[in-house]
Formats: sequence, C-alpha cells, structure tokens
Amino acid sequence: MRTVVLGGDGYCGWATSLHLSSQGHSVAIVDNFCRRQWDHELGVQTLTPIRPLPERLRAWQDISGKQIDVFVGDVMDYDFLSSVIRDFEPDAVVHFAEQRAAPYSMIDRKHAVFTQVNNVVGTLNLLFALREFRPDCHLIKLGTMGEYGTPNIDIEEGYITIEHNGRKDVLPYPKQPGSFYHLSKVHDSHNVMFCCKIWGLRATDLNQGVVYGTMSKEVALDEALINRFDYDEVFGTVLNRFCAQAAIGIPLTVYGKGGQTRGFLDIRDTVRCIEIACANPAKRGEFRVFNQFTEQFSVLDLARMVQKEGKKLGLKVELNHLPDPRVEAEEHYYNAKHSKLIELGLVPHMLSDSLLDSLMNIAIKYQHRIDRSMMMPRVNWREARNERSVRAADEPAASPVRELQVVGAGKNNGSRRASATVAKRS
Amino acid sequence: MRTVVLGGDGYCGWATSLHLSSQGHSVAIVDNFCRRQWDHELGVQTLTPIRPLPERLRAWQDISGKQIDVFVGDVMDYDFLSSVIRDFEPDAVVHFAEQRAAPYSMIDRKHAVFTQVNNVVGTLNLLFALREFRPDCHLIKLGTMGEYGTPNIDIEEGYITIEHNGRKDVLPYPKQPGSFYHLSKVHDSHNVMFCCKIWGLRATDLNQGVVYGTMSKEVALDEALINRFDYDEVFGTVLNRFCAQAAIGIPLTVYGKGGQTRGFLDIRDTVRCIEIACANPAKRGEFRVFNQFTEQFSVLDLARMVQKEGKKLGLKVELNHLPDPRVEAEEHYYNAKHSKLIELGLVPHMLSDSLLDSLMNIAIKYQHRIDRSMMMPRVNWREARNERSVRAADEPAASPVRELQVVGAGKNNGSRRASATVAKRS
Repeated sequence: MRTVVLGGDGYCGWATSLHLSSQGHSVAIVDNFCRRQWDHELGVQTLTPIRPLPERLRAWQDISGKQIDVFVGDVMDYDFLSSVIRDFEPDAVVHFAEQRAAPYSMIDRKHAVFTQVNNVVGTLNLLFALREFRPDCHLIKLGTMGEYGTPNIDIEEGYITIEHNGRKDVLPYPKQPGSFYHLSKVHDSHNVMFCCKIWGLRATDLNQGVVYGTMSKEVALDEALINRFDYDEVFGTVLNRFCAQAAIGIPLTVYGKGGQTRGFLDIRDTVRCIEIACANPAKRGEFRVFNQFTEQFSVLDLARMVQKEGKKLGLKVELNHLPDPRVEAEEHYYNAKHSKLIELGLVPHMLSDSLLDSLMNIAIKYQHRIDRSMMMPRVNWREARNERSVRAADEPAASPVRELQVVGAGKNNGSRRASATVAKRS
Repeated sequence: MRTVVLGGDGYCGWATSLHLSSQGHSVAIVDNFCRRQWDHELGVQTLTPIRPLPERLRAWQDISGKQIDVFVGDVMDYDFLSSVIRDFEPDAVVHFAEQRAAPYSMIDRKHAVFTQVNNVVGTLNLLFALREFRPDCHLIKLGTMGEYGTPNIDIEEGYITIEHNGRKDVLPYPKQPGSFYHLSKVHDSHNVMFCCKIWGLRATDLNQGVVYGTMSKEVALDEALINRFDYDEVFGTVLNRFCAQAAIGIPLTVYGKGGQTRGFLDIRDTVRCIEIACANPAKRGEFRVFNQFTEQFSVLDLARMVQKEGKKLGLKVELNHLPDPRVEAEEHYYNAKHSKLIELGLVPHMLSDSLLDSLMNIAIKYQHRIDRSMMMPRVNWREARNERSVRAADEPAASPVRELQVVGAGKNNGSRRASATVAKRS
C-alpha cells in the first residue's frame, strides 16, 4: 500500500510514518519543517533532542531496512502538492500538515489568519489534487474532538439523528469549536464532506483527542528515531506538560477549576488508528467520521494522577490553579462516543500507572532541556493581541537553562534562542 | 446612527446604503470595486447601466441632500479596514463585502481558494478590528439560507433544540452548504459566533434567501441611482435571469427537474431587514441568527410564474430543462422558519403579479444590453476545472450585442469585452 504522510516530520506524523513503514506500507513523507520553525519563533524546543529528518530516515533504514521517501515543500503550494500526488500515486494520504496548537492560533490576528488560511487552503489543495490526479485515493484527515466543544448531550461520531416537528434526518453533528485553530478544523470538515459529495472522493475524518506520550514501538528502537515531546504552554499537550513540570519540581498549571473534560489517547494508539483507517478505507463518496480517543479525563484527574505518580518517584508535586486563559466551561457534561475504531480492531493502551511512570521518566531524563519560563500561559483568549516576544530576562533564576546561559543573554529577543541552543548542546 | 456598509457599491450593498441614508443614518461605504472587476473577468455586464460610484453619490446628494462617505479599499487589508473602524466610529457595520456567487466559487481551484480566503479573512479582519477599536459596535453579517442545505426536517433560525439520549441542549443548526461559496459563509458563521463568545462582540447573522428585483424606493428616484441587475449564469440570481431570458425570447434555463426549493425575497425587503437589524441590535456577547426571506418557491414555480406573466406581455416563454450543473437534490422537503424579522416589524413585499410585471419591464427596457451567450451554465460542480475563457465566437448570431460588435471581435479573449463596451455606450 502506497501512503503519503503530510506533516510526517511532526509529533504524530513521525510516529505514524515509522509505524506504517514497519507495517509494510510504502511511505512518503511531505513536510516543510514549519513545526521546527515555530520552535524558533516561540523560543522553545522539544524536551527530547529530535534529529534532522535525513538523519532520522537514515537511522530508520539502517534499523528496519525500509526506505521512506521525502518530498520537501508546502501543501499551500498546489504545483508542489499535486506533483507529489501525481508522481507517488498514493492509495492513501494521511493529512497531519496543519498548524495544530490552539494557543498559537490565539496569539493575535496574524496567527489566527495564518492558522485558518494555512489549514483550510492546504486541505482544499489536497482535495483538488486528489480529484484531478488520484480520485480513488483514500483521504485520512486529522480533525479534533475539539470541533464538538462541550455540548450538554452525548457527542456522536460525526453525525446525529435528529427528530424535529415529526420528521427525522441524519445530520452533521453541530460544532462549537473553542479556538481559531479548532475552527479551522471545523471548516476543513465541511469542505471535505462537500468534496466527497460532489466528486465522489473517499475520506475519513479522525476527530482526535489530546495525545500523550512520545514513544511508539518504532520510535523506541533507537535514540536517533526519538520523537517530539512538547511541554510548553503553546504546543505542549496537557499531560506531557504536567510530566515536565513534575520532573523539575514546579507546580502543575491547572487552568481554572480543572473540570474541563476531554478525550485522550496514547500516541501508540494514534499510529494504530491510522493503520486501521488505511486498512479499512471509506467507500467512494463517503465522508466517514471516527472519534479517535480511548479515555475521558478532566484536567484535574490528570493533575492528581501525575501527583500520585510523582510521589512514588520521590517528587513533591503541587497544583497551581491559574485563572483560565481560555474561554471555556470549567465544569460541564461530557460523554463522547468512540466505538467505531474499536469495532475495527483498536485495542487501546489505557493510561496505566506504568505508562505514566515511563512518561515521567522521559521527562526526568531530559529535564536539563526544560525551560521553565515556557510553562505559564501567556496567550489569553480574551485579548486580541498577546505579547509573545522572547526575553531571557523573564526566566526564573532556578531554571536549569539559566545555568547554561550564554554571555549577552537578556539583551534582545534572540537571547532565549541562544540559551536554548546551548542547553541543547549540553 | 453611524453605519458602515462594507461592499456598498454592490447589488444589495448599494440599495442598503441609500435606504439607510434616507432613514437618517450617517453612512460610509467601503468598497474596492472587485464586483465590477469580476464583470470584466467574465466578459459580462449588469443589465442596467450602473454609474461609477462618485457619480452615484453626487446624484444621491443632489436628490436627498444627504452625503455618503466613501473609503476605497479591501477588507483583506487590515490596516485599511481597522483605520476605517477607528476613524468613522460606527455604531453598526453591515458586511456585504464578500464574493457571493456559488458558480464563481466552483469555476476551479483558484476561484474556490479565492472565495474562501477572501470571505473568511475579510470577516476575521473585521472581527479583530471591532474587538480592538469598536467593541460595542453591532456587526450585521450577511450569511445565506444556503448554509443549511436541504435537510429533511424544518430549518430553524440558527439554532435547534436537540433531545438526545435523555438530555437536551440548544445547539447551532447543522450546516450542509452546497458550494465553496456557501461553505465560506458557514466558516464565517462559526468564526463570528466564537468571537461573540470570547470577546463579547454583538452580531446578527442574516441568512438571506435569493434576492430578486433591482428597484428600491431610493434607487427609483433617478436613473443615475440605478442598481445592478445580473442575469448571467454566474452572478444572475434565478428570477432576474428568467426575466432577462423571457425578455429576449429564449427558453428559461431550469436546472434539472426544477424542484429545488429555496427562500426568496424582494430587494426592498433586504434593505428593510438591514434597517430593522440596525434598529434592534444584538446584545453584547450575543450571536443572533435571522432567516432573511419572505416566501419559498421552487425553481419550477418561478419559471411558470414568469411564463404566465410573459404571456400577458405578449411574450412566448418556453422552459428548457437542462441537466443540473450543480450537485443538489432536484426534489426535496423544505420548510424554513423566518419569523424573527417579521416579529421586529418587517412587512414583506410578496412576489405579486405587479412586481413580476415591473421586473419583466425592466428586462425589456434594457434588452439591447443582454448577451444571450451568458445564459447557459458553463460551471459544472462535478468538474475541478471549468473553462471560462471569453470568446465572442461563441455568441449566437441573434444576440443584440452581436449587432453592435466592433471590428476585430472574435479573434481573441478581449473581444467580448470590446463588444460589451460598445453595447453599453449605445
């Protein structure tokens, strides 16, 4: 099976590319490295020291004997994207190539517009490229559980049967997304559904929950294959961030009451879900929606689990309830269905003590790379412009990164990057 | 009351600007004349000879004694748009400044991307400008009834109460838009709803039906105030197109069975609805949705009404059932609510014989300006690229425009424009 992974150098994309390759797919990665660029913009880096893509791929070939092709370019560039579809002739395209952080989209107008244009136009380009050059190809599109928001009724998988005034229809589930990023995914869903209808394309929209973990079976094979682990307030998903905070002994940043409940999944289940979707394609003309998560937790549930696990490891973990920088219900009903992937064979990795233990140990192993000034939320949903300039002077003195600070840090916006680079090299 | 009309040089925008001015609003028009530019692109022109904006505004000042301000620029340009909001200090902004033709958005990828980026980013810019400089200003956003599609249950005004598995919530009404243009309006609706929630903006989303007519009370005051009347297959709304076809004796182009049912309204009700929305603003933080139409008709209903009315005027009107170029149900249930504007005081102008008579007479008066080659649908929803090059050689010999054709016409793409210019000057 020939499979293109758009955004294959990113967090989920990298783990997915290796997994599909190990399962015998002929894989091509498409990436423009913008995710690495955003680290520079924000003055932050992944906890884990990821390698450049060519180095990752050489290591994979040495270990597995399998080659992954690479096309470097931007999905916003139709000539580029359509040439990849035409030349590689994929049976499936897995589309991770979007700006995926809610706080990033809420920084200011330019970041909001960038996120929506990048995500919506990238997906439109892909839809047209498939229509023109590969109409039978299966589009596996990453959406998010955040498209649904937190309605006071059960969340179904994409569609809901509504009885109203004595009549009945099955309609797209109403969407109440909570950031310009989540909105971009809702826009995508509507666009993809429409193209399946008018052109007979086949698509699976995976409304993914919050992903945690960094190790998949393939990633664990060699240090050179190591995956991203983002812990900062912009790109760090909540459980990864909590583990990093626990590792360096700073309080876990719980937004508001912490009653915000969401669907979560282990990155090992992300890659397996993609594999399952590839193996069971949607029908021609079908726009199929799976809710891709395995367990529901509230933010406070997770904080308490990390606290308990930290205690076992001899760490004192405190909780810091901050005013919620997001506009969201801090307590609410939440019950989202997620049976379709299970029916197709997914056997979930639940968030057991042992997984949490392994996650905490990764955070402890790389704790010298943690910049603690990146933990506090600086993007407030209520503001139209959030200050994101990078100033080393903001860093608490106790930060391990501070100890490695280069001469001249604190003078300009570039200083965080300078210190971060030194930390990386240490 | 200080009111900005974005897109005030267009079809609905011009009639609205004059009406609000006559009602005592201090009006500013914002426009970049892209609607006039699209006429050049498509090689078509409005049936009615509209004047340049400065001439229109001088005429209005002479007749009414009222001045309308003008800001020439693009809502995609945030510096420009935000400076208008800052300088004019509006109490209400009426947002018509979007690409509004479904077939235009379906021509090819570039037109699809243009439509979605232009509409979504223009609206995002407006939301940010209001948040930053005029947070109490009332946003009156033009949506479309086409956002809902044709569900098999009654269509409510923006929201629907859903009971599901023993629980209940009021949720955004599910959307099933039928073109990249209609999709752009769905994207807008989600974006505007979100900004009302996070920033406390006040907004009214007017899901407008298909508009017909060209005369409002103010437009009728002087030939120099004449409004657009689009009859072509791209920008011409169905009833206006049928009247133009009847006037020159060519069959009405009914797509498929003609059972497509939609909400319709007279342009005199469009301007009154906007006035009502301005006078009754949404509350801070409220995202309010009104369905703005007065009557439902199927396309075949309208064709038969034009046929009947034509007979009275001595015209022989035939119907031509073409294969539907759109992907849509040709017969379906349709029952859309539209009581909120009535409750606020709208007294609808129904599509009576006399209105249809007046519309037909306008079409007859300007029939020498009709290019009959612009009637047949050339944009097929099922194709990713539709040929839209302008070739005078395609024109039937009987077209009145052909008789005025200049020397050299028929040789290249510019010839249609050349002949159209001559026709306009005649």
